[in-house]
Amino acid sequence: MSLRGVVPPVVTPLLPTGEFDRESFDRNVNRMLDAGVHGLFVMGSSGEVAYSTDRRRDEVTRAAVEVAAGRVPVLVGAIDMQTARVVEQAQRAQDLGADAIVITAPFYGLGGPEQVERHFRVVAEAVDAPLYAYDLPVSVHTKLQPEMLVRLGVDGVLAGVKDSSGDDVSFRRLVLANRDAGSPLSLLTGHEVVVDGAYLSGADGAVPGLGNVDPHGFVRQWEAYRAGDWAAVQAEQDRLSRLMDITSVVKGVSGFGAGVGAFKTALQLLGVFTSNQMPEPVPSLTGANVEAIANVLRAEGLLD
Amino acid sequence: MSLRGVVPPVVTPLLPTGEFDRESFDRNVNRMLDAGVHGLFVMGSSGEVAYSTDRRRDEVTRAAVEVAAGRVPVLVGAIDMQTARVVEQAQRAQDLGADAIVITAPFYGLGGPEQVERHFRVVAEAVDAPLYAYDLPVSVHTKLQPEMLVRLGVDGVLAGVKDSSGDDVSFRRLVLANRDAGSPLSLLTGHEVVVDGAYLSGADGAVPGLGNVDPHGFVRQWEAYRAGDWAAVQAEQDRLSRLMDITSVVKGVSGFGAGVGAFKTALQLLGVFTSNQMPEPVPSLTGANVEAIANVLRAEGLLD
Amino acid sequence: MSLRGVVPPVVTPLLPTGEFDRESFDRNVNRMLDAGVHGLFVMGSSGEVAYSTDRRRDEVTRAAVEVAAGRVPVLVGAIDMQTARVVEQAQRAQDLGADAIVITAPFYGLGGPEQVERHFRVVAEAVDAPLYAYDLPVSVHTKLQPEMLVRLGVDGVLAGVKDSSGDDVSFRRLVLANRDAGSPLSLLTGHEVVVDGAYLSGADGAVPGLGNVDPHGFVRQWEAYRAGDWAAVQAEQDRLSRLMDITSVVKGVSGFGAGVGAFKTALQLLGVFTSNQMPEPVPSLTGANVEAIANVLRAEGLLD
Amino acid sequence: MSLRGVVPPVVTPLLPTGEFDRESFDRNVNRMLDAGVHGLFVMGSSGEVAYSTDRRRDEVTRAAVEVAAGRVPVLVGAIDMQTARVVEQAQRAQDLGADAIVITAPFYGLGGPEQVERHFRVVAEAVDAPLYAYDLPVSVHTKLQPEMLVRLGVDGVLAGVKDSSGDDVSFRRLVLANRDAGSPLSLLTGHEVVVDGAYLSGADGAVPGLGNVDPHGFVRQWEAYRAGDWAAVQAEQDRLSRLMDITSVVKGVSGFGAGVGAFKTALQLLGVFTSNQMPEPVPSLTGANVEAIANVLRAEGLLD
Repeated sequence: MSLRGVVPPVVTPLLPTGEFDRESFDRNVNRMLDAGVHGLFVMGSSGEVAYSTDRRRDEVTRAAVEVAAGRVPVLVGAIDMQTARVVEQAQRAQDLGADAIVITAPFYGLGGPEQVERHFRVVAEAVDAPLYAYDLPVSVHTKLQPEMLVRLGVDGVLAGVKDSSGDDVSFRRLVLANRDAGSPLSLLTGHEVVVDGAYLSGADGAVPGLGNVDPHGFVRQWEAYRAGDWAAVQAEQDRLSRLMDITSVVKGVSGFGAGVGAFKTALQLLGVFTSNQMPEPVPSLTGANVEAIANVLRAEGLLD
Repeated sequence: MSLRGVVPPVVTPLLPTGEFDRESFDRNVNRMLDAGVHGLFVMGSSGEVAYSTDRRRDEVTRAAVEVAAGRVPVLVGAIDMQTARVVEQAQRAQDLGADAIVITAPFYGLGGPEQVERHFRVVAEAVDAPLYAYDLPVSVHTKLQPEMLVRLGVDGVLAGVKDSSGDDVSFRRLVLANRDAGSPLSLLTGHEVVVDGAYLSGADGAVPGLGNVDPHGFVRQWEAYRAGDWAAVQAEQDRLSRLMDITSVVKGVSGFGAGVGAFKTALQLLGVFTSNQMPEPVPSLTGANVEAIANVLRAEGLLD
Repeated sequence: MSLRGVVPPVVTPLLPTGEFDRESFDRNVNRMLDAGVHGLFVMGSSGEVAYSTDRRRDEVTRAAVEVAAGRVPVLVGAIDMQTARVVEQAQRAQDLGADAIVITAPFYGLGGPEQVERHFRVVAEAVDAPLYAYDLPVSVHTKLQPEMLVRLGVDGVLAGVKDSSGDDVSFRRLVLANRDAGSPLSLLTGHEVVVDGAYLSGADGAVPGLGNVDPHGFVRQWEAYRAGDWAAVQAEQDRLSRLMDITSVVKGVSGFGAGVGAFKTALQLLGVFTSNQMPEPVPSLTGANVEAIANVLRAEGLLD
Repeated sequence: MSLRGVVPPVVTPLLPTGEFDRESFDRNVNRMLDAGVHGLFVMGSSGEVAYSTDRRRDEVTRAAVEVAAGRVPVLVGAIDMQTARVVEQAQRAQDLGADAIVITAPFYGLGGPEQVERHFRVVAEAVDAPLYAYDLPVSVHTKLQPEMLVRLGVDGVLAGVKDSSGDDVSFRRLVLANRDAGSPLSLLTGHEVVVDGAYLSGADGAVPGLGNVDPHGFVRQWEAYRAGDWAAVQAEQDRLSRLMDITSVVKGVSGFGAGVGAFKTALQLLGVFTSNQMPEPVPSLTGANVEAIANVLRAEGLLD
């Protein structure tokens, strides 16, 4: 499986009771598939994997596999602290039909780069599905080194990388080293504000959280990229980057609560989600924050 | 439950197959109880909670409750990423007989101090057992603020704090603020190298990983502290601090693998553990590292 | 002065005695001017400002002004800890003929964002020359916020920004906010490996340390950008990014010693510098490191 | 010179015009000498070295040497970015009569531990006065390793260490390693809130910023320590730690502005300083902050 294109990290809708909102989930996934996205990534950071019990994780994975129904591959995050726990998460996801598994470096316990590499190798041996490395130092506090990633690609351990490291210099080095090694890895950027630059660097695709809100924009941008129309790639990006202001207008809440909170609120305003309910201990956005998000959607023409 | 005294974080022995070594576990716990420790903390960072599946966590909790048999309270770490997952870990530990539950700030997902406080409140509502906050910024990347901790103590949310923050200035402020509030919190230090200073600051006890290796030393130190014999408290600390060199003589492995790896190796050399097996992806110590640890044990008179 | 184009941070050559090597300096500057660069930035981080006494700083500034002789503007780094010291550095540079002054956020002493903003305002009042903000959190440990920078641009405090923050998401937000405000700031990227992405984001130019080694490449890339030929911009970048391997092949030395050490060594191999001497306490590169750098230069066709 | 005892980092008073307030300076120094302090450390972080031009630094050094008049040794901070600049600062301080020079690891430019060690060796060769290492990672972003410090002590490069690292575990290791090497280093703690613990660890003295406000307390504590009266050492510390609340009651200003701002304000309230003027870009404390500081002074009996 060589993944290319737009693969949104699917946001997990909740009912006001805190239960999984399957109807809104299906509506959102179908809207993205109709827009032409090339894959789905569930149980990523934006999919609130950290806030979800194992039962919830399974529920969402099952739903994604059902609604995708083979139309596009479903990647599932198997995010946990260290190897033994990640293996269990990965095997459960595989058993539920995941087309690929996404894992981070180990976290909480402290070790060195050899342990990071061994972690990926041990997990890969325990599952048959293709394995993607998720580079997210802001949560995991380890930066994955390009040399290691390409080595794991050459050895058949990794099928690709989702780079959310915020380090475009390292990403460029990864692209060049991967190309020199015969391109074993599919390289996807997780930064929706600079997808155009990642494409110019040689990315194989994008995993944009904002793709939940405006999947058509990211698909159009991908098609412009495939056509070599850089002016269109850039113009679409400038528009999408302004739309990303839905996350920066939020006041009084930061991090996940502002980012995914804004995505959920926008999706509710757009009629895709029933509620913008957030999981404990994160407050749901209300009042002036909702209004500020609505204003950004209006300014960019997504809302009347 | 107002916990006072020496409460070692119990190291989890493994067989060379990676399975839990119940015999070595019982031997180690009984040796510590015979030495006079005042509590046991299982499934802490030193107890390799991050490397343990839920099944393994339950196995160790059950074993601790059985072997302690009510002689001292058993605290159990319910360590996971965010609130919903922590609640599940905490409830399982409580159902297995834990006398108290130990949890960290949420991690992986990003939020602010309000979410940290709400996290503790939500977990406390979900369990009956007393709740301890575990301040471990090196793993969790959040420092717990003294003001918040004391507020949660006054409100009956927290029964105590295990401070492994490495911030003795903050710990002193915590002690003073707790005293001003009527001492709702039991305050334990996790730094075995400076327990004497923590006692001088007003700590109620210690959670020393090195207490697995030399429980008698920490119990003698506690008794000297209770007797006001500061010269003895200090002299015992100097000896214990030198013994802690078992962790710093390790070469080529860092973090958990060096620290807990040294504890396991020392316990094997002392005949308490059958093996110094480490969990994936951490290498077990061998060769020159084992010899260097043995030399420290000999220099401090623990080994012939 | 609205600066646009390629503005290399000029490396400071030393004689083996540690004295400033004026001949090599002139050779390097003239080579860059002949290649068509649009400005010179002396006494930046790559110009070893931190390692240079005030006398040395003045010597280099004077030399730059002399050899540039008005052909392009000369920007001078006035890098020091806090406001009063920076004002002195800035005034001396201005007196020596600097066309613009480049300063960072204050460092060493700790304060908040209001103090950072006031710092820029106080320095701007003390000099007549245009002021550029240098965003370099890896050295300064403060990230300059886009909103503040644009506000300082609108207020006439800042003429531009050299962004070496490694944060392409923030840079994109800065570009968009600057454009919305009427483009008061000239925005230059300091990351030579992803200049193409910065141009796509809307950068006004680049400050590439590698521009000392291959100024023609960066000028060609700029011209392709002006012509809208993105394929050429990208192809040139891929070549330059590979050339940047001169810094990553260095073993046993890290940071400034590897980066600027590699630039100096390459310039010596190319016959531009007489010596690759580094300032105390940094070791000069020798032996296998020199050979590895030569191999990269050969692979990219810069050396026979 | 083997320094022992209480060596306050002398705060630098300013007139409302920003000029050095020599009268207040002399009053403060004489008050501390009358209280029995054992040394003075001028141009440290609390002495606003980062905010002081070279002319100001010299002015303060000269004043300290004059007013001390040989009664106690005067240590002078020679704080600058890298070796060549530090050598100049150190030589100037020495020429003005400093009894010892205090320097940090190099900062702003990035290097490894070998460069840190070489930095200390090169500076030591350039001055005759005893050299003290200042471990201040919060400003310098490098932690000095105990092994290196003791090695530099044995080699006669360093006479001592002022430890403001906030890492009491590392400090304990430093004390033990220094003792094993024959105690070449004088080891002073910079954390006024836990001086008792540092004495228990084996510190040779303290460099408490709060010693400007209450020198008598720190001298009494030192004498109790020399007499082995740990109950008195601890009781004095609890009192001093509460007095340190003058820095934590400050709202709206953080870091240097809160800490040294509170010291200056307290000294003004006590009639020692004429003004609590802060250097640019730091705001001076006013209104409610001054009142809150006065309340702490009253609560601890220093103000009526």
